[in-house]
Amino acid sequence: MSDPKNRQWLLAERPKGAIEDRNFRWAEAPLPELVADGDVLVRTLYLSVDPTQRGWISRDTYLPAVPIGDVVRSIGVGRVEKSTHPDFAVGDVVSGMVGWQDYARLPAKGPGSPMKIVPGVPIPLAMSALGPTGITAYFGLLDVGRPNPGDTVVVSGAAGATGSVVGQIARIKGCRAIGIAGGQDKCDWLVKVARFDAAIDYKFENVAARLRELCPKGIDVYFDNVGGDLLDTALAQLAMRGRIVICGAIATYNDSELRPGPKNYMNLLVKRGRMEGFLVLDYMKRAPEAVMPLFSWVQRGELVDRVDVKEGLENAPATLRRLFAGENQGKQLLKIAD
Amino acid sequence: MSDPKNRQWLLAERPKGAIEDRNFRWAEAPLPELVADGDVLVRTLYLSVDPTQRGWISRDTYLPAVPIGDVVRSIGVGRVEKSTHPDFAVGDVVSGMVGWQDYARLPAKGPGSPMKIVPGVPIPLAMSALGPTGITAYFGLLDVGRPNPGDTVVVSGAAGATGSVVGQIARIKGCRAIGIAGGQDKCDWLVKVARFDAAIDYKFENVAARLRELCPKGIDVYFDNVGGDLLDTALAQLAMRGRIVICGAIATYNDSELRPGPKNYMNLLVKRGRMEGFLVLDYMKRAPEAVMPLFSWVQRGELVDRVDVKEGLENAPATLRRLFAGENQGKQLLKIAD
Repeated sequence: MSDPKNRQWLLAERPKGAIEDRNFRWAEAPLPELVADGDVLVRTLYLSVDPTQRGWISRDTYLPAVPIGDVVRSIGVGRVEKSTHPDFAVGDVVSGMVGWQDYARLPAKGPGSPMKIVPGVPIPLAMSALGPTGITAYFGLLDVGRPNPGDTVVVSGAAGATGSVVGQIARIKGCRAIGIAGGQDKCDWLVKVARFDAAIDYKFENVAARLRELCPKGIDVYFDNVGGDLLDTALAQLAMRGRIVICGAIATYNDSELRPGPKNYMNLLVKRGRMEGFLVLDYMKRAPEAVMPLFSWVQRGELVDRVDVKEGLENAPATLRRLFAGENQGKQLLKIAD
Repeated sequence: MSDPKNRQWLLAERPKGAIEDRNFRWAEAPLPELVADGDVLVRTLYLSVDPTQRGWISRDTYLPAVPIGDVVRSIGVGRVEKSTHPDFAVGDVVSGMVGWQDYARLPAKGPGSPMKIVPGVPIPLAMSALGPTGITAYFGLLDVGRPNPGDTVVVSGAAGATGSVVGQIARIKGCRAIGIAGGQDKCDWLVKVARFDAAIDYKFENVAARLRELCPKGIDVYFDNVGGDLLDTALAQLAMRGRIVICGAIATYNDSELRPGPKNYMNLLVKRGRMEGFLVLDYMKRAPEAVMPLFSWVQRGELVDRVDVKEGLENAPATLRRLFAGENQGKQLLKIAD
């Protein structure tokens, strides 16, 4: 039997504008070797497909840019095949920075180091509402946005992986949850399945007018996954002491130059408002604080999870592109192996 | 003896761009009558000349826009001539929303209601470092910016009324204070007299390059009085968990349309930063908390006050214009009567 090959997508060039196939190069390499004490070798099972990857392959952000020629950086879940780490045994299923490849070496420390996933649930659930996305929603809304019962919470990218959980936590915490999403299907899902109080279809509705109708007292918390004009619209309708949680700006990630910022930012002064950014990486040590309530809400049916699973490593670039076309329905995953 | 007249500047039209004389109309009126229980009649002694007045005469902000034909709104200090308020006797010197006029009726309640000024100090000091400007600096820096000893605090509009106090409080609290101001004279004053650690002359220096030199670890607190490009420059150099205090945006107040906002706002996410606006109005009930330490710093020579006094009600429009040309040296006042 020949050695298994490690199929990989390497970064060929930095994308300009929308992601194109030629930004990546398909390659086959030998299996990675374990080089440091604590290293773990995993077989990739699922890749998490996230908007932030668009930044990682473009420039230094909160992580250094992926070097040209390196495997494309990606969170994922894999099964441990070899381990020199006392906490991880062969056969364990762990999440980590596996990258767009069949096999990955995960170092013992750093933002991509292995973590056990929530046991006893399907891997896709452990990667969405009970994984980094759910944890992002939980701490971003509660720790940064700090909603009070009765507050009006507006979420952009509301049908996406993080947004859909944010709005549901807002509802669970006694807030009015209003989602902004693109398309009637997504809006129907938000109201009928995820039980948001209302949804606004930014593709076909006047968002400013709808927000005025739905939030007559203004927006107490705006949880922003989108950036761009929607952020400006929300700033203009901020309630007194309103909070804007900066989680992402998918509308802008394909821009080759920084676009003008929110011209209504001075409304932060008029309304004594706060705009604050955060990264889930900083909260990973507190993850159980989020995962325990999230799990119980899922079990009780108060929190619904929506996962959009594609298959095949060869489809990684096309699957990432889905996010920027708004084609994903909830958390986008790519299944690599059983 | 004929009745005294009440000389006034009325708002004739909303300014477009820079303030012009024709935006205002000189008038003489009878003395105001006291109409409600608790009203006080004051003789205006000094007017406070503040950038925020540019907003008040233009549009609804945190206060409704001054109606066309009304007396131009202005904080000031006056001597009580008549009183139906138990707390204020004839002869008391009070601050309040006197407006651009010789005599004003101050109602008992609301943001412009009378307040006693700090006793035993010259009125100009009571109107600057120990008045609303000093209180703005105190709560804006300490309550919103929350600097820690050793932090690098950068202030725009640093030679202005608020900025000069902000930087000095930062120094007193064990921070490095860096001021941005226009012109060598102002920068010299900041370093030599107000004892900032450094000053940057935005008119003649490359602010981004100087900030990189002076803040190699980034900006922990940026106290913004100016807005515009300087805010973007500061955002780009924010330290991890840096805070931006939005106090004003004098660079933009003459714009007839909102200019593009800060394009680097997503650095709030990368750096887990916070941008927050505030208004001193909300802190007036806590004023003694600020005035007591400010007074003791002034007495001990740790805090220097700089006041720029012009004279004559007829010069009110020209004096307000000085702020936008950066001609004022510290707190701008206009003396109306002895």
